[in-house]
Formats: sequence, C-alpha cells, structure tokens
Amino acid sequence: MLKFLPQGGVCTPQGFKASGVAAGIKESGLSDVALLYSTVPAQCFGTFTTNKVQAAPVLFDKKVLESNSRVAGIIVNSGNANACTGHTGYQNTVDMAVQVQELLGLASNQVLVCSTGVIGQLLPMGKVRKGIDLAVTALKDDASTEFSQAIMTTDTVHKTLGAELQTESGVVKIGGACKGSGMIHPNMATMLAFITTDIELPVNFAGEFKAWVNQSFNAITVDGDTSTNDSCILLANGASGIKYEDLSLSEQGQYRRAMEDLMRELALKIVRDGEGATKLVEVKVEKAPNNAEALQMARFISTSNLVKTAMFGQDPNWGRILSSAGSSGASLNPDLVDLYFDDVLVLEQGQPTQADLNALSAVVKKEEYQIRLVLNLGNATASAFTCDLSYDYVKINAEYTT
Amino acid sequence: MLKFLPQGGVCTPQGFKASGVAAGIKESGLSDVALLYSTVPAQCFGTFTTNKVQAAPVLFDKKVLESNSRVAGIIVNSGNANACTGHTGYQNTVDMAVQVQELLGLASNQVLVCSTGVIGQLLPMGKVRKGIDLAVTALKDDASTEFSQAIMTTDTVHKTLGAELQTESGVVKIGGACKGSGMIHPNMATMLAFITTDIELPVNFAGEFKAWVNQSFNAITVDGDTSTNDSCILLANGASGIKYEDLSLSEQGQYRRAMEDLMRELALKIVRDGEGATKLVEVKVEKAPNNAEALQMARFISTSNLVKTAMFGQDPNWGRILSSAGSSGASLNPDLVDLYFDDVLVLEQGQPTQADLNALSAVVKKEEYQIRLVLNLGNATASAFTCDLSYDYVKINAEYTT
Repeated sequence: MLKFLPQGGVCTPQGFKASGVAAGIKESGLSDVALLYSTVPAQCFGTFTTNKVQAAPVLFDKKVLESNSRVAGIIVNSGNANACTGHTGYQNTVDMAVQVQELLGLASNQVLVCSTGVIGQLLPMGKVRKGIDLAVTALKDDASTEFSQAIMTTDTVHKTLGAELQTESGVVKIGGACKGSGMIHPNMATMLAFITTDIELPVNFAGEFKAWVNQSFNAITVDGDTSTNDSCILLANGASGIKYEDLSLSEQGQYRRAMEDLMRELALKIVRDGEGATKLVEVKVEKAPNNAEALQMARFISTSNLVKTAMFGQDPNWGRILSSAGSSGASLNPDLVDLYFDDVLVLEQGQPTQADLNALSAVVKKEEYQIRLVLNLGNATASAFTCDLSYDYVKINAEYTT
Repeated sequence: MLKFLPQGGVCTPQGFKASGVAAGIKESGLSDVALLYSTVPAQCFGTFTTNKVQAAPVLFDKKVLESNSRVAGIIVNSGNANACTGHTGYQNTVDMAVQVQELLGLASNQVLVCSTGVIGQLLPMGKVRKGIDLAVTALKDDASTEFSQAIMTTDTVHKTLGAELQTESGVVKIGGACKGSGMIHPNMATMLAFITTDIELPVNFAGEFKAWVNQSFNAITVDGDTSTNDSCILLANGASGIKYEDLSLSEQGQYRRAMEDLMRELALKIVRDGEGATKLVEVKVEKAPNNAEALQMARFISTSNLVKTAMFGQDPNWGRILSSAGSSGASLNPDLVDLYFDDVLVLEQGQPTQADLNALSAVVKKEEYQIRLVLNLGNATASAFTCDLSYDYVKINAEYTT
C-alpha cells in the first residue's frame, strides 16, 4: 500500500535530518542555505546538466561521485548559482563542502554542493560560511519544509512530498524536495531535486534512477537543453534496515512505481509553479513509430511559444499544435493525425471535425488538461508536461537581475 | 553604384505590375488579396517551408516549379493560411491559380499561389474569387505599397524596398516585399517574401538564390523550424534587356551583393516588426570551429526566451547568454570565451571583466545593438537577428484567433 504524505519531504525516511536558514545571500532576507544530512552515509545517484557551461558545484559533485558513491551531506545555497565564476568559484564550492564535512565530522568526499540563482557573480563567502554554521546547528528530524523553502529562487511555493510503502519486511519511506519554475525554457532555469529513501538500494541502480528521472524531471524539460546548475540527486541510506533485494518481486515493482510517482508529482509541482503559469497541460503523443520520436515531438510542441501563448489565451488553436508537430523533426503524416483536447476530437485523419465548440472551450478553460496527438504510425507513446506563457513570465524574466 | 529606394518595391523593376485589394477575408476590412504580375514570364526561384505539414499553396507551388521554371503571376491572400484544409483546400488553391491564369490570358502552370493567416479554416472562396477579379482589374505599374500592405497579417507596418544598380549595360533594378512578424518562434509564423528583378538570371542560379536566403530570411529564422506556409520567391523577368552573363565580373559581384543587401534589409524589417518587439539585436558568433556550429549557436541563443526577456528588461544578463551558448550543442570551451555587448567586453577568457556598468547599461538601452560571442576555437562567423520578448508578444499571440 502506497500512501502519499503531502506534508512529508526529505526528512520523511528514517535517518535524514535537514535544515533551512537565512544567511543574507538573498536580498529579500528569506532563507537561502539548506542542508540535508544522512546519519548513515547513503548510496547516492545523481544526474547533472548536460550544458557545456557547468557551474562549479556541478563540476565538484560529478568529481565526488566518480570517486565515491556514498554521501552523507548536501549543502545548498539559493540566490547565487556560482556559475561562470572561474577558479575562485570552484574553490568556494570546495570550501563549502569542507566546512560541512568538518562541522559534521565526516570523512572527505562525502558532501555534495548545489547552488542556484544568478549566474556570474562570486558567492558572498562570509555570509555563506555563517549560513553553513547556522544550518548545521539547526539540523533536525522534521525540517522537510524548511529545507524545501531554503532552496527556492523564483518559485512561488515550496515543493515537497513524502510517501510510505508498506511491505512484508516493514515500512519503506521516500521523500523529496525540488525547486524550479522557469518552465518556458527550462533549459536555463535551474532545476534542483533531492530524493531520499531509507531502503538500501543496489549499487547498480543507476539505470533505474535514470529511467525515473526521464519520466519525471526530464519530461518537463528538453533533453540537452539544461541550465548550468541542474541536478537531481537521490540518497538511499538503508536506515529502515530493509534491502531492495529482500523485497518480493511484486514489492520491488511497487517500490519502483512509488519512486516514479513521487518524482513525477514533484516534477509536476514545478510545472504548476511555472513562471507566470496559469495552466498545466500534458502534451501526449501516441502511436508514434518509436519512443524517441514520440518524446521529441511531445517536447517540441510543449516548448512552442505560439502553442503556449494560445494556452494562456484559452484558445484551442490546433493549427499551431499541428504546425509545431510538423516542424519537430519527428515522423508525421498530416493525413493520418487525430488530435484531441481531453476527449474532444478536433482533427480526425488530418481533417477538422465538427467538434462541439462549447465542449472544446470548456476544456481549454480548465486549469489542467491534456492535448493528445495520435499519429497512427506505430505504437510508441510519450508525454511532456508544460505550462502556458503569460504576461507574468515576461515580467518575471525581464526584471530578474536588474 | 547601388541606390536603395525606400519607397520602391516589387514594381520597381521594369515589367512588373501589382495590386492589393480588400476582398473581405479579413474581418477588419483591410486589404487581403495581392497580385504580382510580370508582363513577360519570369525565371522563378523559390524556397518553401520544410515543415512536414505544408499548406495547400506550398504543395501547389512546389509542383508548378517542378514542371516549369517561368512564372508570370503570384496571387496572395492574407487572413487565411489554407493549411490543414485537406482536398478542398488544395482544390481552392488550384481554382485561385486558374482564375488568375484565365483573367490574364496566361498559359497553364504560370501562376503561383501564397496564403497566410489562420490555419485550419477553409478559404471563403466567394470572397476570394471576387478579390481576384478586383486584383486583376487593379493591376498597375506602381503598386508596390498596395501589394505589400495586402499581404500583412499581424504585421504593424508594410515591408517594401527597391534598389537600382547602374552598370555599363544600363540600369538593373531589384524590388521586394515581405511579411511576417512572429519573430519569437518564426518557425510557426508565416514568412512570405517576394523579390523581383528585371535582369535575366541564369537558370542554374538556384544555389546563389539559396545563399541569399540563408544570409537574410534564414538568418532570422530557425532552420527546419518553419511554418506551414513560409515561402520566398524570386522572379527575374529580364525586362531590362540585360543578362547577368553580360555584366563584367565586378558588376556581377555588385549585383549579387545588391540582392543580398536588399534581401537582408527586408528580413530585418521583419525582426524590427517582431510581435511586440522593442529591440533589434544581432547575435554574432565569431571564431567558431566551423560555419554550421557558428550558425547553430547564434540561432539557439537568439531564440532563447530567457535571453529575449532580458533584452526586453534592458538587462545585460550575460549569464543567460553563456548558458544558452552552452546548451546549443555547438562546440564551446567556457574558459576561452570573450563576450561583448557592442564594444563593451563583459567576459574575457571566460572570466567576468570589470566592465564599465554605465557603458554597458547604455548599450542595452539602445533600440539596436550587437551581442558578440568570440569562441576562440576557429575562424568561422555567423549572425542571427532577433528581437526581444515583451508583454505585447504574449498579448498578440494569446488573442490571435479567439
């Protein structure tokens, strides 16, 4: 039995402590340093941005994980991305990790660092150091909310979720927090996600982890179009005493689905909080010749400004959707396509239907709906989740650093 | 000597007549049917959208040009794209061409058709037929303005330009008109361009024509990301009595540069009139390893919403530019990059400079400026021209069909 815990988060699984404090990095005075601590070093899986410009903490974390797959702490600052900051920036990341390591009495190479915020400015290290001291002191067992608040940048809500799964071996827990709201071009808006679990996962679970990320955080982003700082990190500390291998095959399936569901729910929180967003729309491509083309088309449509402004205008402008599909590079025969808004069929075998305009209008006025493009070329399906493009997106992004 | 004629246009070269009339296709009552007529069938070169969803007139024109390279007339309607309209839509395009052919007493296969406007609605053929009658009657020698006005959709200004070049053989003229203003994702905003010249061009000039298009209209668009209707058509009728081959080598060079300049100027008119645009910005990538990667990066940066909203906010947010460059897929070594706003160096060998913030602020407040990214990896250069992303872009596109 899977049970979601809406108030849960990174501290939901056993053996995780966290904190979130204000160090003055953000001018607003809001909390900006977050710490996640696993009392037992946890098996760690991470995926990082594929951008050729990578922030200092990304370079650092990748190096740590090459030498060591168990991690005890993650220190995060918001308000400054520590990207494009050269050697000084990298040294600042190292200093952050070392400070946490010493304060928590850890072995070396057991602390990861994440930063998010403005690019190209050196971290105010005096404030950061003070923040880390505070964060270590503030560590507690139930700080899921504080942690998720301290990692926010342009987010308007903090994003946290927990889940527990009853198995024959006992209760296994999963928790997570993420931040990010620049959904229009998620490529350059840092997305950070932290997932915790108290099961012991196999060392060779990297493929599973990558699959979960693809179906959650990568379904709201464009592959290869990532920011300088994007990171998704999973810590599995085994504190429940339960090993994944000890679960029955059916329970293993339930656990994998639980992880997938929790990560997708967290990802959708990012879309719902898209900068200026008023809608959450699933773009689902069905009956494509293969998965890669299905995903390519779903992602292409879901990042089209013309499609997204039409969503904001509550306009069922299927012409823009079809045109976008046609320019995605994926296979398409315009004479075979069916197109739905929820259950309303607007295009059948490439020809406009006599759709009920009232029903259609009702769909696009909803806060969440589905656009379904059936290509009738094969059996592959893929979804991308997107939000609309509104005045407020422009406002937020035009004014971000000035 | 090349002389630009700001009031000139498609009728500037000898032997071209045009018209623009109101047929009631647009609810606004503004002119919406345009006709271009060459009194001598002209050598025709055309490039069309690479979208897999192609409007009826695009399918028709490509077929005409496969069988016949000389064209006497182009009939254009705005207000309706005749795209995604099935067999009836295609027959409507054929009917438009045949009507023009009969009224002008032309041989078959000498008339092209272009449509632009809303996708997915059948043309109101009663109005279109009436419009074609009116357009043929209204043909005259100096209707460059009327023609360029009747092809507009969300354009706020009509776009027309003429030029004349003095050669030893006499005066050679070039003219052109274009429409399009959905610059943010030009991929789905129809761009139509019509170029006329009274020189006789070689039949094998398709390569030259393609190069001109690449350096003008394709420098403001994203390759492979075109609308259902994009078309650029050149008519060379030889009415000046001058053949390209008769020009001296130096004059041939002048003519090619004149054509290139006129087409680029027309293309820039589209960017300046970008939906909601307040800025025209050239994104120039220099010292790239090769032309393809230089262009890939310039185009990628110039379509980034985060970069474009920063332009609107008059924010010299070079972090977003570098991040976009890094996710373009083109080669980049962050430690080698220099970045300029006009002449202000903000990043040198990947490190932020102590740039004069007043000078920098003055650049981004200008209506037109240049962002120059020097990769220091090779010798290739490419430019893309873009506009900013403003509130009005969202407004225009959210309200377009509702």
